[in-house]
Amino acid sequence: MIEDLRKGRFTLPAETGIDNEVKRIIEKWGADAIRNSDGTILSKELMDMAVKVYTTYLTVRNDQQWAYSHRDQLQMQYLMSKHNTAANEVLEIDLLDGYFNRQFEIDKDHDIKRYWEVIDRTSGELLDVNHWEFDCNTQKVVINNAKKWHRYTVSFLAYQVWDTTQMYNHLTNNWTTAPEMPYDAIHEETREHIFSYLDNWLKENPSVDVVRFTTFFYHFTIAYNDKAKEKFVDWFGYSASVSPKAMDEFEKVKGYRLRAEAFVDEGYYNSPFRVPSKEFLDWIDFVQGFVAENAKKCVDLCHSYGKEAMMFLGDNWIGTEPYGDYFGNIGLDSVVGSVGSGATLRLISDIPHVKYTEGRFLPYFFPDTFYEGGNPTKEAVENWVQARRAILRKPVERMGYGGYLSLALKFPEFVEKIEEITNEFREIHYKMEGTKAYTAKFKVAVLNAWGKLRSWQTNMVAHALWYKKIYSYVGVIECLSGMPVDVVFMSFEDIKKKGIPEDIGVIINAGDAGTAWSGDKYWVDDEVTGKLREWVHNGGGFIGIGEPTAYQHQGKYFQLSDILGVDREMGYTLSYTRHDKAQEETHFILQDQKSEIDFGEGMKYVYRVSDSTQILSMDNGDINLAVNEFGKGRAVYISGLPYTPENVRILLRALYWAAAKEEEMFTWYTSNSNTECAAYLQTGNVAIINNSDKVQETEVYRDKNSAVKLSLNPYEIKWICMEL
Amino acid sequence: MIEDLRKGRFTLPAETGIDNEVKRIIEKWGADAIRNSDGTILSKELMDMAVKVYTTYLTVRNDQQWAYSHRDQLQMQYLMSKHNTAANEVLEIDLLDGYFNRQFEIDKDHDIKRYWEVIDRTSGELLDVNHWEFDCNTQKVVINNAKKWHRYTVSFLAYQVWDTTQMYNHLTNNWTTAPEMPYDAIHEETREHIFSYLDNWLKENPSVDVVRFTTFFYHFTIAYNDKAKEKFVDWFGYSASVSPKAMDEFEKVKGYRLRAEAFVDEGYYNSPFRVPSKEFLDWIDFVQGFVAENAKKCVDLCHSYGKEAMMFLGDNWIGTEPYGDYFGNIGLDSVVGSVGSGATLRLISDIPHVKYTEGRFLPYFFPDTFYEGGNPTKEAVENWVQARRAILRKPVERMGYGGYLSLALKFPEFVEKIEEITNEFREIHYKMEGTKAYTAKFKVAVLNAWGKLRSWQTNMVAHALWYKKIYSYVGVIECLSGMPVDVVFMSFEDIKKKGIPEDIGVIINAGDAGTAWSGDKYWVDDEVTGKLREWVHNGGGFIGIGEPTAYQHQGKYFQLSDILGVDREMGYTLSYTRHDKAQEETHFILQDQKSEIDFGEGMKYVYRVSDSTQILSMDNGDINLAVNEFGKGRAVYISGLPYTPENVRILLRALYWAAAKEEEMFTWYTSNSNTECAAYLQTGNVAIINNSDKVQETEVYRDKNSAVKLSLNPYEIKWICMEL
Repeated sequence: MIEDLRKGRFTLPAETGIDNEVKRIIEKWGADAIRNSDGTILSKELMDMAVKVYTTYLTVRNDQQWAYSHRDQLQMQYLMSKHNTAANEVLEIDLLDGYFNRQFEIDKDHDIKRYWEVIDRTSGELLDVNHWEFDCNTQKVVINNAKKWHRYTVSFLAYQVWDTTQMYNHLTNNWTTAPEMPYDAIHEETREHIFSYLDNWLKENPSVDVVRFTTFFYHFTIAYNDKAKEKFVDWFGYSASVSPKAMDEFEKVKGYRLRAEAFVDEGYYNSPFRVPSKEFLDWIDFVQGFVAENAKKCVDLCHSYGKEAMMFLGDNWIGTEPYGDYFGNIGLDSVVGSVGSGATLRLISDIPHVKYTEGRFLPYFFPDTFYEGGNPTKEAVENWVQARRAILRKPVERMGYGGYLSLALKFPEFVEKIEEITNEFREIHYKMEGTKAYTAKFKVAVLNAWGKLRSWQTNMVAHALWYKKIYSYVGVIECLSGMPVDVVFMSFEDIKKKGIPEDIGVIINAGDAGTAWSGDKYWVDDEVTGKLREWVHNGGGFIGIGEPTAYQHQGKYFQLSDILGVDREMGYTLSYTRHDKAQEETHFILQDQKSEIDFGEGMKYVYRVSDSTQILSMDNGDINLAVNEFGKGRAVYISGLPYTPENVRILLRALYWAAAKEEEMFTWYTSNSNTECAAYLQTGNVAIINNSDKVQETEVYRDKNSAVKLSLNPYEIKWICMEL
Repeated sequence: MIEDLRKGRFTLPAETGIDNEVKRIIEKWGADAIRNSDGTILSKELMDMAVKVYTTYLTVRNDQQWAYSHRDQLQMQYLMSKHNTAANEVLEIDLLDGYFNRQFEIDKDHDIKRYWEVIDRTSGELLDVNHWEFDCNTQKVVINNAKKWHRYTVSFLAYQVWDTTQMYNHLTNNWTTAPEMPYDAIHEETREHIFSYLDNWLKENPSVDVVRFTTFFYHFTIAYNDKAKEKFVDWFGYSASVSPKAMDEFEKVKGYRLRAEAFVDEGYYNSPFRVPSKEFLDWIDFVQGFVAENAKKCVDLCHSYGKEAMMFLGDNWIGTEPYGDYFGNIGLDSVVGSVGSGATLRLISDIPHVKYTEGRFLPYFFPDTFYEGGNPTKEAVENWVQARRAILRKPVERMGYGGYLSLALKFPEFVEKIEEITNEFREIHYKMEGTKAYTAKFKVAVLNAWGKLRSWQTNMVAHALWYKKIYSYVGVIECLSGMPVDVVFMSFEDIKKKGIPEDIGVIINAGDAGTAWSGDKYWVDDEVTGKLREWVHNGGGFIGIGEPTAYQHQGKYFQLSDILGVDREMGYTLSYTRHDKAQEETHFILQDQKSEIDFGEGMKYVYRVSDSTQILSMDNGDINLAVNEFGKGRAVYISGLPYTPENVRILLRALYWAAAKEEEMFTWYTSNSNTECAAYLQTGNVAIINNSDKVQETEVYRDKNSAVKLSLNPYEIKWICMEL
């Protein structure tokens, strides 16, 4: 049993040329699998060691000979030119102005009048194809009868002549190798080649145990600018899944023709922050169906050679979304994904239809972190501690790291710390025994325009990256990822079609006005507002964060301001005199709060609309935290909720208060908000974690009347046995 | 001549019972006129003194006997009930819930089905009048077939049974007198009574020289709440100018019938922050016509008795707007108004069609300022200094104070300070000799949906009051009010109808998105954007503050982002990677800036959209100040501009830079931004003022090559003679 705690559940990124070091680290970190990374090759000796071997498989760019000899079957992106203001009746638009010319080549092989669109962005009108021409020499579109002072854009298709991931790695690591180009499986010839090439590869690589697909067919959207820097990144973007052939196939399947505008979408490129159009949802469905069907063929091939098929959740993952309708059909053995936080851990660990999941933790062994004077150990500890609370709720079965091991070996402190982390990870599994920790008796639903498809991915731009505009919302799912509550992701269409499930106790709506996360036009859909009002009135709990239920309409900005008890001043109601004041008594929600609350970016100009609203926190006249009652139900408004241990506690208390189940909160509860506990009722083990970098004293409550005191070292996890 | 500097141009609020003190102060402050205030009466002795006598005349409430005996001819307001959510099919709405029952009585005298509206605020639909009833006993409207979970409101008419100003004075000063009620001149009987009562009063008050109308017929909108506190205030509001009779008259004149919704306007009560509807503009026109016609009759009566007619700009001023089309017809001798700032000083001093204007300075002699431990002197100095810079541009001819003199006399330091201020005021007039100070060769236009009608009133809620949401915009006109530039106020309709006048050098658009000040829907009107783009392209200057040109449409939020060089992130373009960085070189606009810039509330999430944009100031990744070029024109973006001496300088430099006339700025210019100068070329006098409470050293430039050094005491004004 002790052996179990020292070995297993760990995948090491191995590297050739340092075989002895690799062997030492395999022992030290208890690896039972090794893998290569983009740009590394494993030696035969390493592959013959008594550990499982993963090998990265790059489905659409492994065979660059194919790519270079089939340039008409490369992948494409729908791009949009800059907005150009017409100062004359003749307007020339340089299509690739602002784009990286080593990434894109304009598609001149297809009927541009069929697939391109020139749009007057002042009027929103599509130009007649006879009113513009493309000049192949200058790469410009010329509009001959432009309306003066109107803005114009061109949506056009361009070949991706440099694979996105390889381009990124290349530019980050100053590689000198040739650009790799991605080919498109939509073409039958290429598709068949992908299968036969894989078949051959499987045959030729008997030492490989696990084929780690990175990934299948279409990359998320990235465009670089003319200075070879990132111009656009959307981790969820479908703009690189498009081609004339795919558009034509779509038309056959769905019965209507898509416009370029379905992708370009006024130049927003179907950002997940936009409420998705029917056309875009149909496209997602079409691509997911196509990808799942053909990914399954790849997986079946692996199985036919007795190998496992693992998918890396990232890079070319478009169409494989694990919470989509087709993912189960692929038949994968496992998914591995990058762990940037608790939410991204749950994004992986909650994935259905696979035998196991694996988390690739940070930092990635790349020179941007592992440089002289850098502190990769700190990053590793923080990454681990933030993920650990989520692991206690729903673990990934395995963990690992990525990148170049040789870089990590230059930091001995780091090597020691990873040993500790891997041991801690194995101990958690040992104590959990595959059971689930205690959770609240009610479920929590996160409500937005995407629902289940974007589980643990709400308000996200690029995988786990910090943006000023989102961190106060991403904090909500980050808090939830490690909390003792069961979370479901629900869309407005779910509510319209199926109503609100019985087991939901609290609904959370968090996001900026106008975004898919807040809901935009759904808040003037009386079926949505009606069902929600009825549900809250009958006792449901509603938590709004930022600009919940926002849509300027008929005298209100927050459409459910009658439930929330607050609204936001957009200028039209300044004439209403405010007499808002925070109450002095400490509300249940704030009873563990020791310092000033961190509302992140917060939300200015929120004010009270009802005498029944209790204001719990204000700043410069603006409400940051308020509660209200509506019929038998309760509502909480929070201006922003970045992830901090104290905010986890505020959200926990807000959930129990909104659900009107305050007393139940004290079941497996810790008094100090820097600590949390996870109680495994079936095994009798209870984990208490310290999420802070300081020593913490805490009481652990089994219920309101029985508690034990504990002291925890910085970042410590302690296990106690409950008396059953 | 010295005598002139010690006496004149000053109106004293006198009070009975302290006649000797009044005489002393008349001498000390050099008063040549005395006046009474609301609630005070002047003794015969005072009125016989050798000074002009103003007497306040309250046109619509002087005769309370008339009011009490003609309750059906009292003034009304269009009110809106609270928003009520229907939890059942039968919904009862308590109309006066949340209103002050001593202020309003529901109008039951007219056909409620004709004048009231019940609106489903979820769908925006007007309810059929057969679907609701009013219960006179409960004062509730009952809807019998409400749609469950929809929100409903009732718009209804209520008599004003307490005059707004008297109610305010009453509650502020704990008066015990009976409430006064305002009667409505729309009724012929009442109107004729107003004239005959005035005629009689004029006959009986031969000692009165100036009839100070406070004011004519309709009060700006104020509603109190059920706790006898202010609930709603709109200094520009027309909701108290309404009655069934007026609605019917309107229909005859304008040829169509107004809905209650024209006033209630989704519950925003036609806030000046809303882009005005055609209906509302027609109503304003109708009321202004009516008010001017009948105010003229009052004025003519005064003249027939050899008395002057003065109007107080405030209280019942609705319909008399001095920048409206009808004001000139009234034939007033003068206007007096409260001076809360430089902008409100200009609001008065720029008024056309009168012989003279008078400013009533702050503080008002009321117990809210003149209490033991209070500091009225500080308030007086700050008010004077802020107004003084505007006076140097365009002076009011006279000044005065209001309230109870006896209160002021308790503060000897205050009495001394006012003597200084009045002397300084007279000296300014003496040195100006009625001429105008040097101004830039180009004019500055403030562009919004109201234009000229709201000159010096942009972004204002209640006269000169501070609101968090507006001070960063009000600062713009406050800065302009004392700057050496000629300012015009221009509407979008002006641009559409007349284009942009030749003499305009720079256009300013300042306000929050969606408001009349920014422009809302006008920014998707291609006539507006086209003319502006063309004008800037040909060399015009454009300054945007806050959310200029904002309207979410076709990929842009700032519709003129091509001119401004910046746009604002509303969530849809987060995928666009930002590489924004403030430039290191000091731009012309910031060359006098010594400390951190105060952008007030600023504007989060503003980013660069063009490589040509120069970022001059950023905070946490958001642009606060940027400049761009567009054709031959230039643009400046500022995130917010509260009034401070340093921001005056930033705006001055921004104007000259935008106009591409940087060199010309140094004509009559001071090097220290806490100081300003006003050069009267015709008289040879130059005023240099210190706007700060510290000693300031400054250089005064006659032109770029000749300057003199000066030192100024705190708040000092110094006069020098230019060598001509």
